[in-house]
Amino acid sequence: MKNRYLRALKRQPVDRTPIWIMRQAGRYLPEYREVRKQAGDFLSLCKNPELACLVTLQPLERFDLDAAIIFSDILTIPDAMGLGLTLEEGVGPRFNSPLRTVADIRKLPEVDAETQLSYVMQAIAMARHELADRVPLIGFSGSPWTLATYMVEGGSSKEFRYVKGMMHDQPDSADLLMQKLTRSVTDYLCAQVAAGAQSLMIFDTWGGVLAEPDYVRFSLEPMTRIVQNLKSRQVASNIPITLFTKGGGNWLEMIATSGCDAVGLDWTVSLASARSRVGHLVALQGNMDPTVLYASEDKVASEAIRILDDYGEGDGHVFNLGHGIHPGIEPDRVRVLVDTVHRESIR
Amino acid sequence: MKNRYLRALKRQPVDRTPIWIMRQAGRYLPEYREVRKQAGDFLSLCKNPELACLVTLQPLERFDLDAAIIFSDILTIPDAMGLGLTLEEGVGPRFNSPLRTVADIRKLPEVDAETQLSYVMQAIAMARHELADRVPLIGFSGSPWTLATYMVEGGSSKEFRYVKGMMHDQPDSADLLMQKLTRSVTDYLCAQVAAGAQSLMIFDTWGGVLAEPDYVRFSLEPMTRIVQNLKSRQVASNIPITLFTKGGGNWLEMIATSGCDAVGLDWTVSLASARSRVGHLVALQGNMDPTVLYASEDKVASEAIRILDDYGEGDGHVFNLGHGIHPGIEPDRVRVLVDTVHRESIR
Repeated sequence: MKNRYLRALKRQPVDRTPIWIMRQAGRYLPEYREVRKQAGDFLSLCKNPELACLVTLQPLERFDLDAAIIFSDILTIPDAMGLGLTLEEGVGPRFNSPLRTVADIRKLPEVDAETQLSYVMQAIAMARHELADRVPLIGFSGSPWTLATYMVEGGSSKEFRYVKGMMHDQPDSADLLMQKLTRSVTDYLCAQVAAGAQSLMIFDTWGGVLAEPDYVRFSLEPMTRIVQNLKSRQVASNIPITLFTKGGGNWLEMIATSGCDAVGLDWTVSLASARSRVGHLVALQGNMDPTVLYASEDKVASEAIRILDDYGEGDGHVFNLGHGIHPGIEPDRVRVLVDTVHRESIR
Repeated sequence: MKNRYLRALKRQPVDRTPIWIMRQAGRYLPEYREVRKQAGDFLSLCKNPELACLVTLQPLERFDLDAAIIFSDILTIPDAMGLGLTLEEGVGPRFNSPLRTVADIRKLPEVDAETQLSYVMQAIAMARHELADRVPLIGFSGSPWTLATYMVEGGSSKEFRYVKGMMHDQPDSADLLMQKLTRSVTDYLCAQVAAGAQSLMIFDTWGGVLAEPDYVRFSLEPMTRIVQNLKSRQVASNIPITLFTKGGGNWLEMIATSGCDAVGLDWTVSLASARSRVGHLVALQGNMDPTVLYASEDKVASEAIRILDDYGEGDGHVFNLGHGIHPGIEPDRVRVLVDTVHRESIR
């Protein structure tokens, strides 16, 4: 198996810097759009293990990527909890029954991931089989806080008025919600490992909208509990875990002491500075601005080199974008990026 | 004159921590909405010096604020450059003629602030007169980068595809645009001081979407040139200047060495940590999460106290929100905030 990715996460020597791309199985690929059309909508695609497996593998056919990530959505857990998820193009995620009261949260069921999210486990098992150990397979979940934002707001948000309102005025309710989500996410990620995931990532897309004490209580602590729970369960104890709080650059020291193996960085953070702050504790993943992929091939290559140089010599770097790839990107730009990273990082 | 605000900006001793609120003259006030209705739309209100002066003073009638800020918009400069600004409720700013090509940028005229933006200067002169030295008056501008995002995108943006595209693929064009904007913003702020502004603030609302080297070149360097130009002009040499890059927490050391007097902080940054990083160089403004004002009066008060404690003893703190006040806020919450800050910070 091409094991650069797993080795880099453990800060072990690698022959070249590994690279994968957040949302690498996605709308920028015409072959993905074909399968998506076949499946109907996004959620139907997530829930169809054969097709989810198929699109998981698509980017590997085109590009020399160092990892696959299972095709799924961060909102599978709240969907399984019965909130009625719909995902419409251009509208974003919507929940028919958002959580607004203590009663809503009290009666929120926890998820039995093995059975209720069996479609994810099936897709993982199939993808592992199809990959045949060519590259490792990444499993993932949204962070409790990030899931909570969608569950309480009822969809995407700019102000986060309701979820922050709950946090400010009913912090015990918010804590209860985080506890339930923490347990469900832990079980979900454990089940993904049992199904074949070889690495785990927690996407904290919205932790960066919080004040520091709120981030610590409502986002970082739940993620830390998940990491520690996973590390204490035999099935997952050796599985590297990456935490990614978008906009979390102020809090790297705290994130890095959660027990995770790697920290994902958005593009606003200097890799050199992040490495000097936390490189003795964790590997670092990132961090090209996704919009660079709209630019010329020369610019893509020069920016890739700048980022490799910013990290500097030595191990512990997983190249990635600082956020998911945009749907409008020309696939050939990804090839330039992947090939440049590999060519320019030969040890 | 109540001069806590100006003294705090110079890190001189004050009797209480001063407070003002970004967008304090705004839609959350019913009396503002009345005047706005009278004026027609937002831009007509900005361009009517009598009414702009009137709404500038409104929050001072209600709350014991330590500064007034002239009512205006950050996009007056591109409007004066002929881009055809419209501001529609719910839609946000739109430019009829966005900049997309080198030719667009080359032919972009610079602004003669004294004449083309005389409505701002008149409003400032009137507000200074009406304030009769009760509190100092703040003038402001958008940062060159922030203005450029709207001018190139044609309005608000999530991806910043076009302006970043220009930056990545035509960096010389982007530099030229920044040079033109730097000169216009400098002249504009100088004219505001000549008209009566006693303090200046540069809003870099969108600097935080950039990778570090891009932030330095396209946002911080232009702001630094503006600060240094203002400090070298006799009319403005003693006027304190606050730079505020939303999402700029990673870059405080660089911002603080620009020559500015104070750095504005959004709510994701810990004041204690910011102070230990740059408190020997600059005063700090901020940084309550604006959504706290949706919460109970008790929560508003306890959060105000937490933020005062986070800054700690000593001078150099200007209390504010970490971003503009939301239109849906109950005005009484602002009273609680202002009174708490004053009461809990008596020296």
